[in-house]
Amino acid sequence: MHSDARESDPIDVGLLSPVTAGHDMVVSDAAVLHALVAVEVALARAGVRAGFVPDAAAAAIADAAAAHGIHPGELALAAVAGGNPVIPLVKLLKERVPGDARSWVHRGATSQDILDTALMLIARRAAVGVLASLAAVEVALAEFAAAHRDEVAAARTLTQHAVPTTIGLRASTWLRGVRRAIARLADARDELPVQLGGAAGTLASFAELAGMDAAAALPAALADELGLAVPDAPWHTTRWPVTELGDALVQAIDAVGVIAADVASASRTEIGELAEGIGGGSSAMPQKQNPAESVLIRSAALRAPQLGATLHLASAFAVDERPDGAWHAEWPTLRDLLRLALGATAHAASLVTGLRVNVDAVARTLGTTGGLIVAERLSIVLAPVIGADRVSALVAAAARGAGLATTLTDDADVADFARQRGLDPEAFVADLLDPARYTGLAGRFVDQAVGADPKETA
Amino acid sequence: MHSDARESDPIDVGLLSPVTAGHDMVVSDAAVLHALVAVEVALARAGVRAGFVPDAAAAAIADAAAAHGIHPGELALAAVAGGNPVIPLVKLLKERVPGDARSWVHRGATSQDILDTALMLIARRAAVGVLASLAAVEVALAEFAAAHRDEVAAARTLTQHAVPTTIGLRASTWLRGVRRAIARLADARDELPVQLGGAAGTLASFAELAGMDAAAALPAALADELGLAVPDAPWHTTRWPVTELGDALVQAIDAVGVIAADVASASRTEIGELAEGIGGGSSAMPQKQNPAESVLIRSAALRAPQLGATLHLASAFAVDERPDGAWHAEWPTLRDLLRLALGATAHAASLVTGLRVNVDAVARTLGTTGGLIVAERLSIVLAPVIGADRVSALVAAAARGAGLATTLTDDADVADFARQRGLDPEAFVADLLDPARYTGLAGRFVDQAVGADPKETA
Amino acid sequence: MHSDARESDPIDVGLLSPVTAGHDMVVSDAAVLHALVAVEVALARAGVRAGFVPDAAAAAIADAAAAHGIHPGELALAAVAGGNPVIPLVKLLKERVPGDARSWVHRGATSQDILDTALMLIARRAAVGVLASLAAVEVALAEFAAAHRDEVAAARTLTQHAVPTTIGLRASTWLRGVRRAIARLADARDELPVQLGGAAGTLASFAELAGMDAAAALPAALADELGLAVPDAPWHTTRWPVTELGDALVQAIDAVGVIAADVASASRTEIGELAEGIGGGSSAMPQKQNPAESVLIRSAALRAPQLGATLHLASAFAVDERPDGAWHAEWPTLRDLLRLALGATAHAASLVTGLRVNVDAVARTLGTTGGLIVAERLSIVLAPVIGADRVSALVAAAARGAGLATTLTDDADVADFARQRGLDPEAFVADLLDPARYTGLAGRFVDQAVGADPKETA
Amino acid sequence: MHSDARESDPIDVGLLSPVTAGHDMVVSDAAVLHALVAVEVALARAGVRAGFVPDAAAAAIADAAAAHGIHPGELALAAVAGGNPVIPLVKLLKERVPGDARSWVHRGATSQDILDTALMLIARRAAVGVLASLAAVEVALAEFAAAHRDEVAAARTLTQHAVPTTIGLRASTWLRGVRRAIARLADARDELPVQLGGAAGTLASFAELAGMDAAAALPAALADELGLAVPDAPWHTTRWPVTELGDALVQAIDAVGVIAADVASASRTEIGELAEGIGGGSSAMPQKQNPAESVLIRSAALRAPQLGATLHLASAFAVDERPDGAWHAEWPTLRDLLRLALGATAHAASLVTGLRVNVDAVARTLGTTGGLIVAERLSIVLAPVIGADRVSALVAAAARGAGLATTLTDDADVADFARQRGLDPEAFVADLLDPARYTGLAGRFVDQAVGADPKETA
Repeated sequence: MHSDARESDPIDVGLLSPVTAGHDMVVSDAAVLHALVAVEVALARAGVRAGFVPDAAAAAIADAAAAHGIHPGELALAAVAGGNPVIPLVKLLKERVPGDARSWVHRGATSQDILDTALMLIARRAAVGVLASLAAVEVALAEFAAAHRDEVAAARTLTQHAVPTTIGLRASTWLRGVRRAIARLADARDELPVQLGGAAGTLASFAELAGMDAAAALPAALADELGLAVPDAPWHTTRWPVTELGDALVQAIDAVGVIAADVASASRTEIGELAEGIGGGSSAMPQKQNPAESVLIRSAALRAPQLGATLHLASAFAVDERPDGAWHAEWPTLRDLLRLALGATAHAASLVTGLRVNVDAVARTLGTTGGLIVAERLSIVLAPVIGADRVSALVAAAARGAGLATTLTDDADVADFARQRGLDPEAFVADLLDPARYTGLAGRFVDQAVGADPKETA
Repeated sequence: MHSDARESDPIDVGLLSPVTAGHDMVVSDAAVLHALVAVEVALARAGVRAGFVPDAAAAAIADAAAAHGIHPGELALAAVAGGNPVIPLVKLLKERVPGDARSWVHRGATSQDILDTALMLIARRAAVGVLASLAAVEVALAEFAAAHRDEVAAARTLTQHAVPTTIGLRASTWLRGVRRAIARLADARDELPVQLGGAAGTLASFAELAGMDAAAALPAALADELGLAVPDAPWHTTRWPVTELGDALVQAIDAVGVIAADVASASRTEIGELAEGIGGGSSAMPQKQNPAESVLIRSAALRAPQLGATLHLASAFAVDERPDGAWHAEWPTLRDLLRLALGATAHAASLVTGLRVNVDAVARTLGTTGGLIVAERLSIVLAPVIGADRVSALVAAAARGAGLATTLTDDADVADFARQRGLDPEAFVADLLDPARYTGLAGRFVDQAVGADPKETA
Repeated sequence: MHSDARESDPIDVGLLSPVTAGHDMVVSDAAVLHALVAVEVALARAGVRAGFVPDAAAAAIADAAAAHGIHPGELALAAVAGGNPVIPLVKLLKERVPGDARSWVHRGATSQDILDTALMLIARRAAVGVLASLAAVEVALAEFAAAHRDEVAAARTLTQHAVPTTIGLRASTWLRGVRRAIARLADARDELPVQLGGAAGTLASFAELAGMDAAAALPAALADELGLAVPDAPWHTTRWPVTELGDALVQAIDAVGVIAADVASASRTEIGELAEGIGGGSSAMPQKQNPAESVLIRSAALRAPQLGATLHLASAFAVDERPDGAWHAEWPTLRDLLRLALGATAHAASLVTGLRVNVDAVARTLGTTGGLIVAERLSIVLAPVIGADRVSALVAAAARGAGLATTLTDDADVADFARQRGLDPEAFVADLLDPARYTGLAGRFVDQAVGADPKETA
Repeated sequence: MHSDARESDPIDVGLLSPVTAGHDMVVSDAAVLHALVAVEVALARAGVRAGFVPDAAAAAIADAAAAHGIHPGELALAAVAGGNPVIPLVKLLKERVPGDARSWVHRGATSQDILDTALMLIARRAAVGVLASLAAVEVALAEFAAAHRDEVAAARTLTQHAVPTTIGLRASTWLRGVRRAIARLADARDELPVQLGGAAGTLASFAELAGMDAAAALPAALADELGLAVPDAPWHTTRWPVTELGDALVQAIDAVGVIAADVASASRTEIGELAEGIGGGSSAMPQKQNPAESVLIRSAALRAPQLGATLHLASAFAVDERPDGAWHAEWPTLRDLLRLALGATAHAASLVTGLRVNVDAVARTLGTTGGLIVAERLSIVLAPVIGADRVSALVAAAARGAGLATTLTDDADVADFARQRGLDPEAFVADLLDPARYTGLAGRFVDQAVGADPKETA
C-alpha cells in the first residue's frame, strides 16, 4: 500500500540482534535472491538434460541470470501483490532473456518449486556454516575437558552444592550434547531436497512438455545441478524437510545454550570459576567482566524454540495442494532460525575457545560448605558403621560450625573403624573428606568423550 | 568474528516476508538508530530542565546528533562485542560532540535506559500506524456490515451448514473483535513509558550529578521530551510494558487473522461467497482468484503468538538488575511483532475495503442442503405439534431426497396446525422454510455494532 | 476406541506437576462438570425470567441437577464421539428430568453456549483464587520491602556486580510487577462473559421460542444467574475473553516467576543472600537448602507463555460460526493455564511470606569487589577533578589489589579536593566508598511502593 | 487455598480433552507411579548384578513394591515439599521393606535417576502405542490410495482450483508424511535411555558402594532390566533424549494433523468430497455430518508444537548439575505431548480406516470451473501454436461463460493444429480438456508409495 521503502532503508541490518550480526550473510535477502535465480537457471539446465529445453535457451537464461541486476528490496515490494517473490522475479528474468529463450524461463514450474528449493539451498549453506562452528566448539571443548579433566569443583543441583564433580566432566557433558546436535544437523543437511512438483505436485506440466519418463527424471537432475537431495516425491504439503531441519537447528542452539547458561552462572561475581576470553567490559564499572557471548547465546536460546514451533504449526496446517498462509509463515521463520543458529554457534565457538578457568575460585567455592560437599560420601561410608542417625548428628554439628574433620576424628567409633582398617584416623578422615576422592567416574567419562573420534560432519 | 557484512548486503529487505514488506519502515533499523539518537538528545535536554546539564552542551549534542552520519549496519557490527548498540553509539556520538559538551553525552545513563526508551519510541510510532490501519478496518467493516445487514447466508459450525445467519452479522462479529483489539492497543500505546534508572534502577548516578529531587524529576522530563508515558519507577526487570504491548499486538493480529480465515474459506472455488478486491491472479490458471491478502494475514497470525510467548519468557526470566539474555531476546522479537502487526493490519484495511460479496453464490450455498438449513427451526416449531420423532422422520425423508416443502405440506398434522392458525398450509410451510425468517437477532446485533460510535483511538 | 479407562485410573492427579498439586481443585474435571450442570440449570432459570420456560420445569431441572450422580470420567469417554462433553451431558440430564420438564433441558442452546459459559465460571473461580494469592504476595512483599528498605546489597547486571542497590528496592520492584498483574487479572475477571448465541450466534432458536425481545434479554438474565458479565454479543468466534484472560494469567505467572528467578539466584550456595522459609532439604546432603518453591514457580514460568500462545492461535483460527478444532484446543489449554497460575501464585505467597534475608551474606557479597561496586560513583565525582583517565588508572590499580581506600587517600589531587571542600581526606574517601551513600532513589521508590494503597481486588 | 484434594477428586479425567480421553491410560499418573516403583525395583536388581546389593534385599524390595498400595494422589501432595515425587516415594517404600533390606532401597541413587528413567519407561510404552496407531494409519492409507489411485479431483492452491490431481495422490502424500514420522519416532523410541548418574552425574555413590568398574557397568544392567537403551553417559543436563522424542511426537501429530486439515476442508457442506466413517451428527440439525475426528486431531495439532517448544526451552536452560525449574517443566509437558500423540494418532487410525469418498461430489467440484481446471495445459499445448495471447483470450472468453470446448473447437487455428496431427478437432479438444489426461505422474507416485514395503517399526 503506502510504502516509502528505499534501497537505503533496509529493514534489518542486525542492529537489534547482536547475536546474529555479522554471522548471517549467507541467509540475507541478497543470498535468497541469488538462490532463487540459481534455481531458475538450474531448472533450465535440468530441462536440457531431460531433453525438452534447448541448450541455447538454458545458456541464455544463465547469461541473463548472471547479470540480472535486480534489487532485492524492489523485488520484495513487487512480491506483495501475488504473495511471493517468484512471480515478479520470473517477470523480471523474462525481460532480461532474449528471443525464443524467454519462453523457457520457469517453464512448467510453479512458484513453490522455486521458492522451496531456494530455501533449501540457503538452508544447506547455512547448515554447513553452523556445522563448521559446531565442529570448532567440539574441538575446543575436547581440549578444554582434557585440560581440566581432574579439576575438582562443586556440582550444583537446584542451585545448591551437592557433591564434587570436575570441570572436565562438566565440559565433556556439554561436548556430548554438541556432538549429538552435530549428528542430527548433519543428517538434516544431507537430506535437504529440491522441490519440483509443478502446480500441484503431479508434474503434469513437465509430463506434457517432456513426456512422463523425462518428467520423472527431472527432480534428480535438478538436485544434481544444485547439490541437494532427491525427494521421493513432491513435498509441497509434507513439510518434514522444513521441520526436521528446524528441530535440528533448535537442538543445536539448545546445545550451545546450556553451555552459555553454565558459563553465565559460573561467571557471577560471587562464583567467578569461569571467564570468557573477551569479557564485555564497562568503562564506568571496571569490576564488571560481562559474559557477553554467553548473554548473546542465551538470547538466541530463548527465542529459537518458539520459531521451531511455528514451523511445526505450518506443517500441520499445510492444507490442500498449497496452503493458504502456512507456507508463507515458514519462509521468514526458517530464515530467522538459520540466523540464530549461525550466530549462536559462532559465538559458542569463540566462547569455548577463549574460556578460562580460575582455579583459585574453583577451589574457593568448592570449600564454601566447609567440607559438607562430601556429606553424601560420609553417609555411605559411615552409616553402616555408626548408623545413619549418628552420621546425621555429626554432620549437623559440623554444619553448625564445628570443624568436620575434627568432629569425625574425635568420634571414637570412626576412629575405631579407621584403625580396624589399619589406617590412621586422621589420615582416614582426611581422605574421606577429600573431594578429589569422591568424583566417581568423572575421569572415565571425560576420557570417553575426549577420546572419541570427532564426528565426521562434512 | 568472520564477517563480510557490507552496506550493500542488508540482511533483510522483506523478500521473505511479503506480509510486512513496504509496511514496516517505522521499525526499520534506520528508525531504531534514529530513535536511539533521539533519546540521547532528549536525555541531555531533560538534564537541562533538571538543572545539571549546561544548555550549550545539550545544544551541541543535538547539533551533532542531527548530522551523525552513522550507518546502522556498521553500528550493528560494532554492537556485538558489548552486546548492545548503545555502547558503540555513545562512543561515536562523543566523537562528534566538541569540547566540554562531550562529557555530557549519555551522562549518568546506562545502555538499558537508552535502548528501552528507544524501543518504546518506535513501538509508539508503530502502534499509531497499527491503530490507523485498524481504524480503517473498523470503518470499512461497519459499512460492509450495514450494507449486507440482511444478506442471509449459511452459518457453519465444525465445517457444516448449521442454521442461517447473515453476511452482516458475520462482519459485525469481526468488527467487535477489531474494536476490542483497538481499545487494548490504544491503552498499551498510551502507557508506553520511558526507561530511566541508571546502572541498576536507583538513579544513583543522576542523584550524584543533580541531587535527589532533580533526579526524581528526570524521568518525567524525559517522557515529556519524547511524548512517552512517565513510569512509576524503573522497569528494568519488570517487563509488563513490553508484554502488555506484545499481547495487544498479538490480539490485533488475531482480530484480523480471523477475518482472513473466514475470507479464505469463503473464497474457496466451491463456495465463492466472498472475493478480495484485488485477487492475486495467475496467468497460466485464470480461474484462480487467490485471496492473496488473506493468505498473507494468515501467515502473520500463525507466527505472532509464539513471538508474544518469547516476550513473556523474557519477562519471567528478567533476573538480577539486568538479565543475562532475556533482555536481549526482547529487542528483535518485539520488533518482529510490530512489523507483523503493521503489515497484517495494513493488509486487513485493504482487504475489508475491497471485499466483495457474490450474492448469487451466497444464495446458492444457502440452498445446498435443500432447505435443511432450517431443520432446527422445524424441530422447535413442529415438535410440540407433531412430536420430535415425527419431525425427525420428515426431515430424514427430505434428506433422502423428497422435497422438504412438499413433504411438510403433504403432512396432515402440519396442514391442520397451519389452518388452526388461520394460515394456508403452503404459505405456512414456505414461511417456515424461509431462511430469512430464522436469523434471530442478527439484524439487531448488526445495528448495535454499526451504530456504535467508532472508538476514539488517536 | 480401545479404552480401559476406569474410575480408579484418573489420568492426572498431579503427580508430575508439583507446582499445581493441591492448588487446582477449583478447575478439576469434577469442578468443570459441576459448572456445566450449573449452566444448564441457570439457563432454565433465565428462561423462566424471559417468560418462555415454565417455572416448574426449571425447578425440576434444578432438582435433577442437584443429584445428577454423573461421573466425570464416564462423561469424558462419552464426549469423544461428538467431540464435546455437553452432548452426552444433556442426554444424561434429560434422563434424570421427569415428564414435561425434560423438553426444557438445554432448550434452544448449543453445546458452545454451555461449555464456554462453564469455562468462564471455573475461570472466574480460579481467577478469584489467583487474585487472593497475589494479594497475599502483595502484602508480604510490602512488609518485606519496608523491613529491608535500607539493606544495601550488590546490584547485578549481566551477572556482574554493578552498583549498590537495596534489598528493599529489589522487593519493591517485584511488588510493582505483582500489582500490575493484579490489576490486569482483576479486570479480566470482571469481564468474563456468559456465552449465549444458539447454534450460530443469532439466538434464532430463543427468538423462535420466546420472541425477539425476550431472546435479547436472555444473556443478561443468564449472566445474572451465574455472576458473570453480560457480553455485548455472542463471542463464539471472537475469542478475546479467552485470550485476555490467558494473557493476564501469563502476566501473573511472569510476575511471580521473576521473583522466583531472583530468589533462586540469591539462594545459590556461594551467594546465600536469601533463603526460603522452608527449604527443601536432602537427608544425604544436609548442606543443601533447595529453594524448592522458587524451583516450582520457575517450572510454571517456563511453561505458561506457550500455553498463552496456543490460546491466541485458537483465537486467530476461530473460523466459521464454530471453529473446527481451534475451539477444542482452548479448553485444556485454558485449564492448564489456570492451574499453573493457581499453583505458582500460591507458592509465591508462601515463598515471599517465609523469605529470609541473610544480612551477613548480603554484606559479604557486597564487598566481593573490594569497593569497586562504587566505581561508577568515583568516575562521576572524581573525573571532573582529576580527569577520567586518572580515575581509570586508580581504579585499575585497586582492581589489581591495591586497597581502593588507600589508593585514593594517597592521591594528592583527591586529598586536595577533599580539603578544598573542608573535609578530611580519609573521611571524604570513606564516604565516597560507602555503598550506602550511593543508592540513589532506592529508598524513595520503596516508600512509594509500600505506601501505595493495596489495590482493591475483590 | 491449599488443598482439599481427595481421591475422589482427580484433577483430570479427560473431560476437557476429548482427543485424548480413553487413549492415554499408559501415561496416567497411576502408570507413572507404577513406572517409578518399577525403576526402584530394577535398580536393586541391577545392584545385585553389579555385586553390591544382596539378592535377598532386592527380592524384598520387589515384594514390597508389588504390593505397595500407595495412592498416586496422596503421593502427588507429598511431592510438593521437596519438589518431586521420588522423595516421598522412597520414604513410603522404605516403610514397606523389612529389616536390613530397607537400607538398599534407592541406595546410591538420586531422584533424577528414578524420575527420568520412569519417564523414559512410560514414554517407551506410549511411543509403542503411537507407532501401532501410525502403522494402522499407514496400512489404511495405502489401501485408500490404491483404491482411489485414478479418482481425478481438483487440486487446490491458496484455496483455489489449480489443476487436476487424484484422490490417490493426495492420500499417498499423506502416507509419505506418516511414514517419515514413523521412522523418526521409531528411532527415538529405540534410543530412550535409562538415567543413572547419582547426585551429580559422576556415579560417585555407586563407585563408593561397588567400586569403579561395577559402577560403570550399572547403567547397562539397569537398562537391561527395563528394556531401555544404555546412555553413553548421564544426561541429567543434556536433554536431547527428551527433545528428540518431543520433536518426533510433534512430527507425528503434524503428519496426522495435515490429514485432518484436508478431511475437514473436503467435508465442508459445499465440497463434500470426503466423509468420516462415523460423522458426529446433530439431532436438531440432521444435515450436519461433523468431521468429528478431524476436529479433535486438529485441536491436538494446534497444541503440540508449543509443548515441544517448552521441552527445548527446558533443554537450553538445563543449568548446573540439575536445573532449578527447567527439569520440572519437562515432566508434565512431555506427558501432555505423549497424551496428544496417543489420542491424535488413534483418532487418525479410526479416521482413515473409515474415510469415504463421495465420487459424485468429487466429479461435481472438479467441474466447478467449467473446464478451466486444465487452463495450464491449454497454455502449454496451445501457446506454441496460436500464441500465449490468443490462449489467454480464449480462456478469458470461456471464463466469461462461453463454453470452453465450443470456443476451442470453433477456433480455426486450433482446428488446423488438430487436423495436422491427424485428429478430429472435437476429439482433440475433448482430450485436451479431459482432466484425467492431465494428472502427470500422480499414478506413478501412488504406485511408489503403495508398493513400498511398510516400514518395520517394531
